[in-house]
Amino acid sequence: MKVMVGGTFDPFHDGHRSLMGRSFELAGRDGEVVIGLTTDQFASRKLHQIRPFDARKKELIDFITNQNFTAHWIIEPLGDQYGSALDADFDAIVVSEDTLPVAMEINKLRRERGKKKVDIHQITCVLAEDGRWISSTRIWRGEIDVHGRLIK
Amino acid sequence: MKVMVGGTFDPFHDGHRSLMGRSFELAGRDGEVVIGLTTDQFASRKLHQIRPFDARKKELIDFITNQNFTAHWIIEPLGDQYGSALDADFDAIVVSEDTLPVAMEINKLRRERGKKKVDIHQITCVLAEDGRWISSTRIWRGEIDVHGRLIK
Repeated sequence: MKVMVGGTFDPFHDGHRSLMGRSFELAGRDGEVVIGLTTDQFASRKLHQIRPFDARKKELIDFITNQNFTAHWIIEPLGDQYGSALDADFDAIVVSEDTLPVAMEINKLRRERGKKKVDIHQITCVLAEDGRWISSTRIWRGEIDVHGRLIK
Repeated sequence: MKVMVGGTFDPFHDGHRSLMGRSFELAGRDGEVVIGLTTDQFASRKLHQIRPFDARKKELIDFITNQNFTAHWIIEPLGDQYGSALDADFDAIVVSEDTLPVAMEINKLRRERGKKKVDIHQITCVLAEDGRWISSTRIWRGEIDVHGRLIK
């Protein structure tokens, strides 16, 4: 099936690894994964500094090409919360716990536009050693590394 | 992976077909699907008459055995909204649009019990010819058949 997923992926941590892994699993061997990568302008709303689009894209490509994924994939710039997800024909969107409301909003907006709703796959956030979510913000603050290990 | 799904499945319609198909797809070739089938007592809260547990179970088994599913599967009685989903070790729950709140409640209750949260896969309800959801209630009312075709 055709799956969409999105993010800023900076730095690329174990939660992103889980999100991407599940997206490709769900797409299936011959499916397609469309990865929306936030533009620098859209990502600038984050509370911490973000590496440039091309650097983030390179890290994402490096990750994907090192896996045994067989589905087709494409990275497209995500200039807002929705990107092409409001109009594209696809089957399912993969989100994490914190972005489930965006997926529900996408379906609401698709419906208003006369587009069919898509299935929503919500993965549980990966936990750090301390039982709290791994997040880019926590990594940026120096609390944990990309695998959720506490930095003493 | 190990997937849980539940329902009354009476009559077994195209929405159920989609729910079961996706559950097995998500479980994967060597995964497991636990199907909670509502008990007669729990199902009696429905607004229309429900066939007995054994008749519903037989129809479900007939459907499953006629597919090319390879994952292991088991049918267990569901005596309330949650069944074994609050305590069992599993990976993902498959729900439709109308039962997403139950899945979210299950995660909340699991968390309170110190169990890890599970991933949630919400499929879009299958639409009848008239663009409204296929539902057992509509079939029971004689509006549509199990494939969502309007009954003149």
